[in-house]
Amino acid sequence: MFFHENSLQYEVEVEQPNPYFAKMLQQAIGGAEGEMRVALQYMFQAFAVPQEKQEYRNLLMETAVEELGHIEMLATAVTKNLEGARDEQIEDAREDPVIAAMLDGGQPRQALSAGLHAMPVDSNGVPFSGGYVVASGNLAADMYANVMAESTGRLLATRLYEITDDPGMEHMLEYLIARDTMHQNQWHAALETMDDHIPVPASFPQEKENQDVNYQFMSTFKEEHSNPRQRWTEGESIDGKSEFSYGRQPGIDTADIEEMIDEMYNEAN
Amino acid sequence: MFFHENSLQYEVEVEQPNPYFAKMLQQAIGGAEGEMRVALQYMFQAFAVPQEKQEYRNLLMETAVEELGHIEMLATAVTKNLEGARDEQIEDAREDPVIAAMLDGGQPRQALSAGLHAMPVDSNGVPFSGGYVVASGNLAADMYANVMAESTGRLLATRLYEITDDPGMEHMLEYLIARDTMHQNQWHAALETMDDHIPVPASFPQEKENQDVNYQFMSTFKEEHSNPRQRWTEGESIDGKSEFSYGRQPGIDTADIEEMIDEMYNEAN
Amino acid sequence: MFFHENSLQYEVEVEQPNPYFAKMLQQAIGGAEGEMRVALQYMFQAFAVPQEKQEYRNLLMETAVEELGHIEMLATAVTKNLEGARDEQIEDAREDPVIAAMLDGGQPRQALSAGLHAMPVDSNGVPFSGGYVVASGNLAADMYANVMAESTGRLLATRLYEITDDPGMEHMLEYLIARDTMHQNQWHAALETMDDHIPVPASFPQEKENQDVNYQFMSTFKEEHSNPRQRWTEGESIDGKSEFSYGRQPGIDTADIEEMIDEMYNEAN
Amino acid sequence: MFFHENSLQYEVEVEQPNPYFAKMLQQAIGGAEGEMRVALQYMFQAFAVPQEKQEYRNLLMETAVEELGHIEMLATAVTKNLEGARDEQIEDAREDPVIAAMLDGGQPRQALSAGLHAMPVDSNGVPFSGGYVVASGNLAADMYANVMAESTGRLLATRLYEITDDPGMEHMLEYLIARDTMHQNQWHAALETMDDHIPVPASFPQEKENQDVNYQFMSTFKEEHSNPRQRWTEGESIDGKSEFSYGRQPGIDTADIEEMIDEMYNEAN
Amino acid sequence: MFFHENSLQYEVEVEQPNPYFAKMLQQAIGGAEGEMRVALQYMFQAFAVPQEKQEYRNLLMETAVEELGHIEMLATAVTKNLEGARDEQIEDAREDPVIAAMLDGGQPRQALSAGLHAMPVDSNGVPFSGGYVVASGNLAADMYANVMAESTGRLLATRLYEITDDPGMEHMLEYLIARDTMHQNQWHAALETMDDHIPVPASFPQEKENQDVNYQFMSTFKEEHSNPRQRWTEGESIDGKSEFSYGRQPGIDTADIEEMIDEMYNEAN
Amino acid sequence: MFFHENSLQYEVEVEQPNPYFAKMLQQAIGGAEGEMRVALQYMFQAFAVPQEKQEYRNLLMETAVEELGHIEMLATAVTKNLEGARDEQIEDAREDPVIAAMLDGGQPRQALSAGLHAMPVDSNGVPFSGGYVVASGNLAADMYANVMAESTGRLLATRLYEITDDPGMEHMLEYLIARDTMHQNQWHAALETMDDHIPVPASFPQEKENQDVNYQFMSTFKEEHSNPRQRWTEGESIDGKSEFSYGRQPGIDTADIEEMIDEMYNEAN
Repeated sequence: MFFHENSLQYEVEVEQPNPYFAKMLQQAIGGAEGEMRVALQYMFQAFAVPQEKQEYRNLLMETAVEELGHIEMLATAVTKNLEGARDEQIEDAREDPVIAAMLDGGQPRQALSAGLHAMPVDSNGVPFSGGYVVASGNLAADMYANVMAESTGRLLATRLYEITDDPGMEHMLEYLIARDTMHQNQWHAALETMDDHIPVPASFPQEKENQDVNYQFMSTFKEEHSNPRQRWTEGESIDGKSEFSYGRQPGIDTADIEEMIDEMYNEAN
Repeated sequence: MFFHENSLQYEVEVEQPNPYFAKMLQQAIGGAEGEMRVALQYMFQAFAVPQEKQEYRNLLMETAVEELGHIEMLATAVTKNLEGARDEQIEDAREDPVIAAMLDGGQPRQALSAGLHAMPVDSNGVPFSGGYVVASGNLAADMYANVMAESTGRLLATRLYEITDDPGMEHMLEYLIARDTMHQNQWHAALETMDDHIPVPASFPQEKENQDVNYQFMSTFKEEHSNPRQRWTEGESIDGKSEFSYGRQPGIDTADIEEMIDEMYNEAN
Repeated sequence: MFFHENSLQYEVEVEQPNPYFAKMLQQAIGGAEGEMRVALQYMFQAFAVPQEKQEYRNLLMETAVEELGHIEMLATAVTKNLEGARDEQIEDAREDPVIAAMLDGGQPRQALSAGLHAMPVDSNGVPFSGGYVVASGNLAADMYANVMAESTGRLLATRLYEITDDPGMEHMLEYLIARDTMHQNQWHAALETMDDHIPVPASFPQEKENQDVNYQFMSTFKEEHSNPRQRWTEGESIDGKSEFSYGRQPGIDTADIEEMIDEMYNEAN
Repeated sequence: MFFHENSLQYEVEVEQPNPYFAKMLQQAIGGAEGEMRVALQYMFQAFAVPQEKQEYRNLLMETAVEELGHIEMLATAVTKNLEGARDEQIEDAREDPVIAAMLDGGQPRQALSAGLHAMPVDSNGVPFSGGYVVASGNLAADMYANVMAESTGRLLATRLYEITDDPGMEHMLEYLIARDTMHQNQWHAALETMDDHIPVPASFPQEKENQDVNYQFMSTFKEEHSNPRQRWTEGESIDGKSEFSYGRQPGIDTADIEEMIDEMYNEAN
Repeated sequence: MFFHENSLQYEVEVEQPNPYFAKMLQQAIGGAEGEMRVALQYMFQAFAVPQEKQEYRNLLMETAVEELGHIEMLATAVTKNLEGARDEQIEDAREDPVIAAMLDGGQPRQALSAGLHAMPVDSNGVPFSGGYVVASGNLAADMYANVMAESTGRLLATRLYEITDDPGMEHMLEYLIARDTMHQNQWHAALETMDDHIPVPASFPQEKENQDVNYQFMSTFKEEHSNPRQRWTEGESIDGKSEFSYGRQPGIDTADIEEMIDEMYNEAN
Repeated sequence: MFFHENSLQYEVEVEQPNPYFAKMLQQAIGGAEGEMRVALQYMFQAFAVPQEKQEYRNLLMETAVEELGHIEMLATAVTKNLEGARDEQIEDAREDPVIAAMLDGGQPRQALSAGLHAMPVDSNGVPFSGGYVVASGNLAADMYANVMAESTGRLLATRLYEITDDPGMEHMLEYLIARDTMHQNQWHAALETMDDHIPVPASFPQEKENQDVNYQFMSTFKEEHSNPRQRWTEGESIDGKSEFSYGRQPGIDTADIEEMIDEMYNEAN
């Protein structure tokens, strides 16, 4: 059961409205790296955690709820970046430099479909998709999905940080980047509490998998190369269960068939 | 800023797990008529309401938050309808009648992608789309969007009600249907508080619109019909500003051009 | 069975071609608020109306057909806004200011994929989706969907009107805005002819729904607030069947469970 | 400008309603091979044809309009295949074999979202996409797109024909298959009237293209094969402008770079 | 089984990086007319060809593999067009004219989501869709799909050619356009080797199709026109099996019903 | 530059064709957890790696190419699971138990659109989306994305393994599961070679981020809870740079505003 309070989780101020930045912020709302994705991802993951693992369920749901607040902050940031171009003055729309900028290179739907507000779409106006959400029913897989989500999310936030010099926007992004630092750490922490989580899923008995190729780096270069002797081609495997080796794709031997076909062509002509 | 509490808004019990019903419930979670849509729609609409209209902002946000709780209830219902087919017993998956049913005619991704849990997709597995969300930046348009969303939502819930005879599911749906009744009423109530909301948007000066066709029913039958004398072809218009009339599509007269082309063909051959 | 005539429903002239406006017009063709949506929505709704309700079937189909003509008008408007940049002159494409504008900030696919013509996509190039179409098989729900579609459609048209000062485009939009006025009125008129359409669907026996919460506004503020005494929290309900009340989310009492978990954690550490 | 008449283009009768077939028919309505695609494709293509090529514009628009009538026929067929399961009897929904079949293996949204009617989606419930529509602004490219659309469309219709033995459905499909025969012929006929349409677009001066590889079949087998002496590896090219030859991918010579990298690895280890 | 070699199929040089052109190139990577589409289309078609038609399977797979190399070339071209704006200098992002251009009118996700690299999306940032791929299981239908794909692909490449004057990009496009010339020829060549491929599919016995309308051009003009005497309305059909004729939509006679309804309305009022 | 060889990477045999399993296999081809995703993800990531990090570029591209071979294997598996229902016998389609099964509960488009072959779609027929591909331009973020992709991929393969008892399919899946084991290990190995990759991106100077909340677990329970003393709420952070703490959402203090609004309502009524 959810609740709300009429306050933002953190300050959102904009000194100089910038419709191009309003467009960029959409990526952090409805994009693949955005807050809608993590809020819903952690929520659906939490729904799938059984009662006896309540600590993980809480971890996930509490963070999902925090992310809902980030959507709220970013939507506020979009509105403030489009300010100075309000509905009441729409009679002057074509002369308004904010609207003009938005229409020329910005996100036209923020004006046309949403009246100068945020939308559940990315920076190109592509609608948010439930297909971004990973909730696999396996805790370790989910935690890796979350590490990834927060990695690309923090990357996006730092890129947004570099393209703004509005003090209010910088301030807000410093907060969001810090939260992504924590979230990355907390998902790693959760992984640390699970033993034997490489490879995922741990529940599958590894003796059933093909033992010839489960720790072999498979080279697919056209010409055979010697072992490049990288961390992933020799030495102990990361899960500590075997040694890395280096080889080629096995290939079902159909050389004779191929030759036959080749001859067939030549003879027939 | 959002909060959560570890309890469901209302009871969710399933007497007899039914994977087909688990599939159907997805429509109420991630479908066009589902709870993700209304939760996000009311939330984005609330984000766009200015401070001086706080009562509408609260109305929208409080209901958005309620709908988040409905997603939680329905996700719980999906999990309970897939029970009896847990991960631990997956060794026997092919003999399990629940899993067998799910795979044959049910929603395979609930098993393959989500480990027997809910997903942000509809009953066919089509991912939830941000494109379902209507948040126009105009309160009256938004309220009509909400009336529509709750109409199709309640319709879906009653259809689900008719195809289950599980007492727990009936009980849950009686609750959700009741909430949809209230929500329809509350959006109509909000409309009642706004004067002059037909046509939407009220802000556009109607004297600018084309006065020849703004209250005329335009018949597009191939053959001309006499006025069918319906509520929408004669009498006072609903907005009380004019009289309905009945006519044909104006059509830019290009008859001469068409004739010319026709002749051109005939002569040329 | 459908027919066509080589004339436009209404004049479409462009004095000063403007590729940015050509981009914006795509929202009115293939966007969520556009003409493809309403044409197909009314058509699929009409397909579902039984013979004995022929007057509604005609109402829907005749308007669907009118909307097909609006797609035709808008596609013509796109082409005319891209004029001066024709295929024959494509050798000079990079010097052409119209093409340059289109590529820099406009809709690149109008040039790259469509040779300077309209496409079934929105103003961001997101393809039209069948998911925009609402045809529920319930006439009242459909009528509300139509009121909503025409509300957001008219809103879009007025926003387009504000950002153009081309006399031809203004003239065309005055026509389309007028038609949206009529269409809003006609769907309301259809609703007026149906008795008892709140809540939708009327066919569901309301005594089955949960009587505790079907007319209660459910507050989800974190802290309990007193009744704000709005139209939707007290007084007669809009459907005239009950009184509005004001309350909190019921919540399944799991407080003891939560406390237990909380203690468990503290003891365990 | 469009018109409609209250009659179907051709008879649609169903002797034995079959919800599985209703599901299959959706592919012919809203699928990639379906009637919505061709209706909209020909329509948008027609919009792009200039006045001086009126005969092609008519060809396209007249056929677009015919296809609208096919959507109407197929939607009628869906409704009739779901008959015996009407709204009025919904109280008995779970006992109804038609509904039971539809829910178990059929298309659940035909029941849940559309009240036992057709939808603008494919046989899996994936919404129709504007992305299916090809309207390139080049007549020859469009004609090939149309030949393809009618080829996959007729293929679909014959596959549907093979899985039904309902005489009414067979009768309707015999009609639709015949129309696809004509449409394939008519698009080929249009191509015949254009000279020099291989390669498309003819307007690009071929002397500008790379003359080394424009008529060479490029083998990408890992091992070099001798010329298989097929129609596409030797003899006159189809456009009559050159001779086919047989060769390998050119490849920018970076062998030395690769060797260097390979050595670098070995030395470094 | 696939292999790779660290070299490009052909040179990709960019003299003057241009972020607008980087945006346009995305259409040729992940757009409906792009290389991902043809690579995957030919691959899935090849998967469906039985052993006894190995020559077609090879034709398809070898070309699929060539197209993978085109994706690689175009991705390289995108990166080179965004050069001068590298991660290391991201501190200066806002002053960088390349990044500024990209953010204002370019494709923002190339910066925000991909760090100045190519993505599997089109020029508007719409993700590549498996729905673009046609692999029908029928060779002739597939070949027409391929002719179409290469026609729109070559059209796109020539349009890109006209809007660049960078010598490196022109050079690359001259190569790609040449390959499209060959590919169009080779699919036509394959069609030439199949007898009786109009109409597709040839396997369906044509005597089963409706003989009244299988070679008739069906006029859908509102008013009856005389035969325009085009190649598609008279003379031998393209498949040589019949004569074209000219007629109107048959229409199930429901005139009496319509009249009845019309009278019913009039009497009732 | 890519190459192909006419042999499968590993054996694909099916003893007992099973159309339901053919449907399930689509998830491993075109689903979010499937082989198209990883093949394209690693390929686009490789495109973005600069020359001086050639070892990572090779690692990514060689694995991308291996995954192309897995698509080929799975497509073969689909065809073999649909065998016994070939085009030539399509006359008997409705009596064929394989086709009957496929149409009733299977994936209808495998029959209708693809002639009993694989498609680039998931197990529900939802088309593959470029939106599944993560290629961020940051190596560490990409590696986590790859760990996640292989985790959900291996999870899917083990779930498929549990629902088949066909020896051929088990054999193939034992191979694919083994490869996923290796791939998880190799991405972890790559991470091990990068120092300081938590948090991602390492390039952002952490002193700029908000220091109050970058290592604090933020509780969003409605009621304040005591520190649950989990790995993520106390002790050293995973990146070793700080200590975890436990706190509440900061919240911009708008309590006075809320109170004011509350009073305002009460006074006004």
